Amino acid sequence: MDGHSPTNRRDRAVIIGAGLAGSLAAVYLARRGYAVDVYERREDPRLAPAGIAGRSINLGLSARGMRALHDVGLLNDVLKRSVPMQGRVVHSPDGSVGFQPYGVRDHQILHSVLRDELIAVLVDAADAQPEVRFHFGWRMHRLDRDRPAVTVVSEQDGESLDVTADLVVGADGAFSTVRQQMQHGLRANHSQEFLDWGYKELTIPVGPDGQPRVRLEALHVWPGEHGLMVAHPNLDGSLTCTLFMPYEGESSLATLTSAEAIRAFFRHNFPDAEELMPHLVEEILSHPTGHLVTVRTSPWHHADRVVLIGDACHAVYPFYGQGMNSSFEDCLVLDRCLDEHRDRGAALAAFQAARKPHTDVLADLSTENFIELRDRVHRPGYVVRAAADRLLNRLLPEHWTPLYTMVAHTTTPYAEALARSHRQDRIVRWAAAGGLAAGAALVYLSARTALRAARGR
Amino acid sequence: MDGHSPTNRRDRAVIIGAGLAGSLAAVYLARRGYAVDVYERREDPRLAPAGIAGRSINLGLSARGMRALHDVGLLNDVLKRSVPMQGRVVHSPDGSVGFQPYGVRDHQILHSVLRDELIAVLVDAADAQPEVRFHFGWRMHRLDRDRPAVTVVSEQDGESLDVTADLVVGADGAFSTVRQQMQHGLRANHSQEFLDWGYKELTIPVGPDGQPRVRLEALHVWPGEHGLMVAHPNLDGSLTCTLFMPYEGESSLATLTSAEAIRAFFRHNFPDAEELMPHLVEEILSHPTGHLVTVRTSPWHHADRVVLIGDACHAVYPFYGQGMNSSFEDCLVLDRCLDEHRDRGAALAAFQAARKPHTDVLADLSTENFIELRDRVHRPGYVVRAAADRLLNRLLPEHWTPLYTMVAHTTTPYAEALARSHRQDRIVRWAAAGGLAAGAALVYLSARTALRAARGR
Repeated sequence: MDGHSPTNRRDRAVIIGAGLAGSLAAVYLARRGYAVDVYERREDPRLAPAGIAGRSINLGLSARGMRALHDVGLLNDVLKRSVPMQGRVVHSPDGSVGFQPYGVRDHQILHSVLRDELIAVLVDAADAQPEVRFHFGWRMHRLDRDRPAVTVVSEQDGESLDVTADLVVGADGAFSTVRQQMQHGLRANHSQEFLDWGYKELTIPVGPDGQPRVRLEALHVWPGEHGLMVAHPNLDGSLTCTLFMPYEGESSLATLTSAEAIRAFFRHNFPDAEELMPHLVEEILSHPTGHLVTVRTSPWHHADRVVLIGDACHAVYPFYGQGMNSSFEDCLVLDRCLDEHRDRGAALAAFQAARKPHTDVLADLSTENFIELRDRVHRPGYVVRAAADRLLNRLLPEHWTPLYTMVAHTTTPYAEALARSHRQDRIVRWAAAGGLAAGAALVYLSARTALRAARGR
Repeated sequence: MDGHSPTNRRDRAVIIGAGLAGSLAAVYLARRGYAVDVYERREDPRLAPAGIAGRSINLGLSARGMRALHDVGLLNDVLKRSVPMQGRVVHSPDGSVGFQPYGVRDHQILHSVLRDELIAVLVDAADAQPEVRFHFGWRMHRLDRDRPAVTVVSEQDGESLDVTADLVVGADGAFSTVRQQMQHGLRANHSQEFLDWGYKELTIPVGPDGQPRVRLEALHVWPGEHGLMVAHPNLDGSLTCTLFMPYEGESSLATLTSAEAIRAFFRHNFPDAEELMPHLVEEILSHPTGHLVTVRTSPWHHADRVVLIGDACHAVYPFYGQGMNSSFEDCLVLDRCLDEHRDRGAALAAFQAARKPHTDVLADLSTENFIELRDRVHRPGYVVRAAADRLLNRLLPEHWTPLYTMVAHTTTPYAEALARSHRQDRIVRWAAAGGLAAGAALVYLSARTALRAARGR
């Protein structure tokens, strides 16, 4: 526990944002001996009514996130509140349903958990530390990146407060104000790209008999070129759906403005979903539309004073289910870097160097997986390929690991996982070419033998 | 002049920024009958002392810019203040000097002009219109994109003014405040990317005899992997140099901190330049470092209320010499779109649709040309290829136009120029393959004939 012992003067950290990244970072920094103040614009999620309509998002916890939670002893608390998902149930547009396991081993599963419940566990754990204080209902107004210090403003009465610190952590999401002010006037590279599909949160409630309407322990996927729907299970037997659709066009969110249009769309695209969702029409008409954005940015830190984590430095589309997991991994890697470098500036630089190449790859993978989930996951070619992948993985566990398995069930850094997957693909191509050549040689030899035999006759 | 006739109620345009794009836009919008107010943060360039040390940038005016100036009758005024450049004089690291003409025809030349002088011509021309007013020393503080209206603040006394308009034009450069506020909270895609090389403005003054120290009517280029220098001629016989170098590293701007280091760097990398630049050391030590940024963004407009032009929507690296030219082209294309669409919202949408695909290509071309100028322009392979390009262009003017010629000497949209260049490249590869095959056939036939003759003997 050497690296976690407090320094003589207790360093002060201010974290902006008590979302997934910010509240886990509070736990980690408190363990390192920091006095931590967390400022969050919204109200305390533990006090808010559970799941505001259309905003009760679930997430799939996988290996990276689990490792980061385990490291601070929170994994069991979280798993108790989650539903295991053994694989995907794919509902094809033709009405057929197939199951695709997430892996070949018992532990290769995901865990569905409500975002708000997960945050409540993290905030409780951090709050239990005497040196951690949460301040809900305070918005960051200004960052002085050099002192460093922040000015926070009360959402309730507009009161303004200056807070100095040794380290400011920007955990304030894809549209981070910390990032904007930290990078202001510097040579900062930045890109944000919105998907031209938005989303609506919907629900599959428990059936009239109190039982789940579909197989609970799985992620349900309705692929389709005009719309993609996924559903995560909840402990109470309901599922939370996310319907992704283009904003504009013939078949788009813009056209779902009446009960008739909504029912026609579902009947045509997700024929078996309509009867699972009794509140479908009201939910689509009343729930807000969410947006999806990819953020790549640099720098992630300013000297030894300010650092970004989570969506603030690497927001990704949700289609690989790695947004939360990579944010949790940030907390663990940042902790390791602070452990390995006595100089905090060096630690923050090492953190960016260790993470950014991998989260940039994750951004690409998440974009590609959108295409895969939308267009390919129900095609026979994909199903066969995935089954072959799992078979090879079972036969040659040391040598063959499907990309999905590496991303979801291991902590191999994303870019290394992708590189290894490319090597495996090359082997397959060589093997296929070799097989083809061997086959051709065999055909030739057989033909020659047959010909000779015929001549000999 | 139908399209230029004023409407009944004179529409009011507010332009933010009186740089190259903003001041030419004022001329164009005045011609369309708009009452135009231009707000510019800096002082009137016509009153400022000519060329503040290290900021007197020159630019190469080429076909697109000339066409846009010609359209409003300003071309001759500008050409009078410019120096024609027939081609590039390339100073190789080994001390050798070569000349590469810009084209094969008389008009295929560029015109070097000082940015401040060019702006003065444009501001004078706009200011001569009764309905155009320039307000120097006013900074835009806030944009209300829906009214639309701007709040401008006096740099002198902080006085604040609300100005409403029918159309707000953001011509406020790569870090546009208009863009930022126009896109705020919308699903705007945006990327800004800094080159990891910065630049210093330096000078080659006239010689002691009052004569230019190098051939005046050309762009001088000193290529090199550790630094790239270009020099534009001025009417007084001096040249303005721009030294591009990496910010960091063994041989970088960070290391040029003493007279010895500067002289050693020049002696090693630009052996013939040192003696041309008597103020080299003082200039490098005292001049500020400039930064280079590529900006891609969308949307370029908000309804029929706000539109971006120039660097505000497509800043590019300067290595293709097309930054100013593409900004001037914006003014012309925007004018055509306003002409063709009675509805201004449709006109602004058509403007973005007509321009963005091409300025995105220009961003790529400008990045590639950095590599070309830095690493390839002095290599024999490049010189031969460029000469072959010019020869083909002379022999087959209808069918063969080098990419550089299309970009610099025509107004073919950038993406079309690139596509045509790719087609030409494919033809060359086929021709080369065909030539090779014909050569091989010839060798084979000759050998066979020789063999038969030998056998016959």
